[in-house]
Amino acid sequence: MQLNTLNDLFEEQLQDLYSAETQLVEALPKMASASSNEELRDAFEQHLAETRQHVERLTQIFGQLGEKPGTEKCKAMEGLIKEGEEVLSMQGDPTVIDAALIAAAQRVEHYEIAAYGTVKTLADQLDLGDAKGLLDDTLDEEGKADKLLTKIATGGLLGSGVNEAAKR
Amino acid sequence: MQLNTLNDLFEEQLQDLYSAETQLVEALPKMASASSNEELRDAFEQHLAETRQHVERLTQIFGQLGEKPGTEKCKAMEGLIKEGEEVLSMQGDPTVIDAALIAAAQRVEHYEIAAYGTVKTLADQLDLGDAKGLLDDTLDEEGKADKLLTKIATGGLLGSGVNEAAKR
Repeated sequence: MQLNTLNDLFEEQLQDLYSAETQLVEALPKMASASSNEELRDAFEQHLAETRQHVERLTQIFGQLGEKPGTEKCKAMEGLIKEGEEVLSMQGDPTVIDAALIAAAQRVEHYEIAAYGTVKTLADQLDLGDAKGLLDDTLDEEGKADKLLTKIATGGLLGSGVNEAAKR
Repeated sequence: MQLNTLNDLFEEQLQDLYSAETQLVEALPKMASASSNEELRDAFEQHLAETRQHVERLTQIFGQLGEKPGTEKCKAMEGLIKEGEEVLSMQGDPTVIDAALIAAAQRVEHYEIAAYGTVKTLADQLDLGDAKGLLDDTLDEEGKADKLLTKIATGGLLGSGVNEAAKR
């Protein structure tokens, strides 16, 4: 592949994110189903709805650029999801499994926070205000999803309400 | 695998990070060699030295727990590094290639920020103060490495000194 201009890089990064988000749309329902904690299940379901919107926004940006989403698979998200699927096959205490699901999901969120940070910077450099606005909305939602997972982990799940048996 | 206790999860997460960090020790010299920008090359080399220290700290924590690093490969870091290696095979403008290297490296940093955030929280829950201190030191360095990459990208590389040709 040729990366001659920042525009080439912007498109390459958008393609990567499109693949990442569509893979995530497939994975999130499995994460939700595996959650024992209701708040966690709701968080995964809410983020699934947001993730579908993120795919929509990327499609909109491709339209603005006169491009189409490609078929190249984001290998990093593939690995992140494999890691999440390993949790789905694990047995044990429901609270600990929920904490493991959160750990996997926060790695995914941070992948997206880094990736959207990059494309937002590139959109800014390329004076693509509309695209930047859309990417900013998504970046904001990824950040909030990550913070909500931290709150669930350190609050209800592992905080005062923690299953003391799970600590040992 | 069984996750019956938070300690099981803590050990599983440490094993994942040990694999991630050792994979990164192999990958960072290639990222440094591929960088055209001197500041970026220096940042990769400095982070390689830190990453070796992160492996050392994890080994120390395994020792405190009476455990040893295993051989399970972190599939997420494997995918993240594959993504970085795709950049190494790309041709084009050196500034744009450098920006692509930063994009890949920041995804790696964010993976680690999420993962160390998790193990730090678990160490806290498990009252493992020494381990928490070591993990906190590493988390701090990962955050600084990420911020330095942002500074290089938005400052020297894509800021006022940006190669105007690369913008088109």
